[in-house]
Amino acid sequence: MNIDMVRAAAARLEGHARRTPLLSSPFLDEIAGRRVLVKAECLQHTGSFKYRGAYSALSALPVGVRARGVIAFSSGNHAQGVALAARQFGVSAVIVMPSDAPAIKIANTRAFGAEVVLYDRAREDRDAIGARIAEGRGLTLVKPFDEPQVIAGQGTVGLEIAADAAAVGVTTADLLVPCGGGGLTSGIALACAADAQGLRARPVEPESHDDARRSLAAGAIRRNENPAPSICDAIVTPAPGQITFPIMHHLCGSGLAVSDLDALRAMRLAFERLRIVAEPGGAVALAAALFQPAALAGDCVIAVVSGGNVDASVFCQALATA
Amino acid sequence: MNIDMVRAAAARLEGHARRTPLLSSPFLDEIAGRRVLVKAECLQHTGSFKYRGAYSALSALPVGVRARGVIAFSSGNHAQGVALAARQFGVSAVIVMPSDAPAIKIANTRAFGAEVVLYDRAREDRDAIGARIAEGRGLTLVKPFDEPQVIAGQGTVGLEIAADAAAVGVTTADLLVPCGGGGLTSGIALACAADAQGLRARPVEPESHDDARRSLAAGAIRRNENPAPSICDAIVTPAPGQITFPIMHHLCGSGLAVSDLDALRAMRLAFERLRIVAEPGGAVALAAALFQPAALAGDCVIAVVSGGNVDASVFCQALATA
Repeated sequence: MNIDMVRAAAARLEGHARRTPLLSSPFLDEIAGRRVLVKAECLQHTGSFKYRGAYSALSALPVGVRARGVIAFSSGNHAQGVALAARQFGVSAVIVMPSDAPAIKIANTRAFGAEVVLYDRAREDRDAIGARIAEGRGLTLVKPFDEPQVIAGQGTVGLEIAADAAAVGVTTADLLVPCGGGGLTSGIALACAADAQGLRARPVEPESHDDARRSLAAGAIRRNENPAPSICDAIVTPAPGQITFPIMHHLCGSGLAVSDLDALRAMRLAFERLRIVAEPGGAVALAAALFQPAALAGDCVIAVVSGGNVDASVFCQALATA
Repeated sequence: MNIDMVRAAAARLEGHARRTPLLSSPFLDEIAGRRVLVKAECLQHTGSFKYRGAYSALSALPVGVRARGVIAFSSGNHAQGVALAARQFGVSAVIVMPSDAPAIKIANTRAFGAEVVLYDRAREDRDAIGARIAEGRGLTLVKPFDEPQVIAGQGTVGLEIAADAAAVGVTTADLLVPCGGGGLTSGIALACAADAQGLRARPVEPESHDDARRSLAAGAIRRNENPAPSICDAIVTPAPGQITFPIMHHLCGSGLAVSDLDALRAMRLAFERLRIVAEPGGAVALAAALFQPAALAGDCVIAVVSGGNVDASVFCQALATA
């Protein structure tokens, strides 16, 4: 796992992934007490960065392997990324999703042409269901984060940030990244280590799921044990990955954690000041950038808004937040 | 008024205006029955294209004239564009706003450093108030649309569309533009006539304020007489301008008009499928692109989403629209 893989992924994604803009607002700068740059990855195809990793992974498969189809486990954004990438390559995709995933994410995954298999989170074994289907049909599993070509794809977000931040004069900043299993964070960290050594990638999580923060502090993987529920469905993973954690441990600054309420407040400000739609899990880095000034260094902060797939009811709940 | 002025405005705006992305979604293509490209100008600084025209106009003023300050009349997006551009040039701006303008728009205009002068729509003469202030202080009036350098600035949206549409293989399409006084529509039409002759600019208005549509059909300026109220506050002007209309008459296809309900439905789809925030007036071109297929020609349509400054209550009303 190295920067050459990230650059190779960028070459494969050229003409497929959208180069998302780096946005800003003087009103956000004022709240944060420093300059704020926002990488609006919610504007990516399928509404999240996950399309990059999925396309990267599928495009790296041998043609004959890819032709048999792919399978993925996901409550939402990875599902849509894999579904769209599979459709673009003309191969079949099976997505195993929890039955309580947001309705919009299930519907979209189906609309991209994937076969959705729902399971009951409380009573069924996701991995067993997936293994049975995959073996029977010769499908290749596309993991959501702990897979080098997926990390390489997510790392292209970091290459773009490095270039676009430098273009507006920013070469030193904390770079805050919404973190579930760490695919996006570790990919961005690899890109920054190569192209923008003054940008320090730092994972941001929900308070109830701060496994990456605790793992980085401990220097070893720590799991969330009996975590409280969080509105940030996209990033409530149990622990950093076996591949992503060593990269984060080597390259990232310390982690941060935000409350669900602050994630909702950040969604409201993204609506009002940037005119973008952020989902709760996609807004945690912006929340930390705006509301945790003492935890940050320097006169500029960069926050990734990693996704924007959110049901209207949750979005309006965010807009009603003070 | 010619393409050289648009290109000169683009050069002055370089490094100031944001190059906004051209977005798309297979879900929108399916609704429209053709490929749909969306110019997300709601992501522009201040949340609307108006910043381009304002910055273009201020940057074209002689230094000594500009230094005395500028004045504008506006209840919304033009106000914020002029206020921000004036702050960037370090000159004072007076914005004459109706006292019943939304509090958030007044607050934002003040936050950009402008001096806001409120007047009573029912009892006071806006032009007399403005003239008195302008004369006393030597301020230059920045008109919202019927001003060549403003049109030139808005035309830079068209230059970007021409280049970015060609890059994704689109050189022939109807190009739908939300239309108030016609500054954006005429500017884009000038740009397309020079750089993308297969793109046909067409104004889109609220049904209750279809002065441009009727004017184009008649070949002469027609006013809205006693128009019904519309939710599309940004584009409810009484008539096309003396400068904008001849350009539109010469270069544009026929106009379209959409209902408030369809504008709200387009806002919902922009939220769900593009993850951008559109205001009602900013969504009318997308509404026509999606819901009036029979009125369009060709296998691709381009729609400008011109602004995203909308109160949360109106936005959630849109999200609740079927």
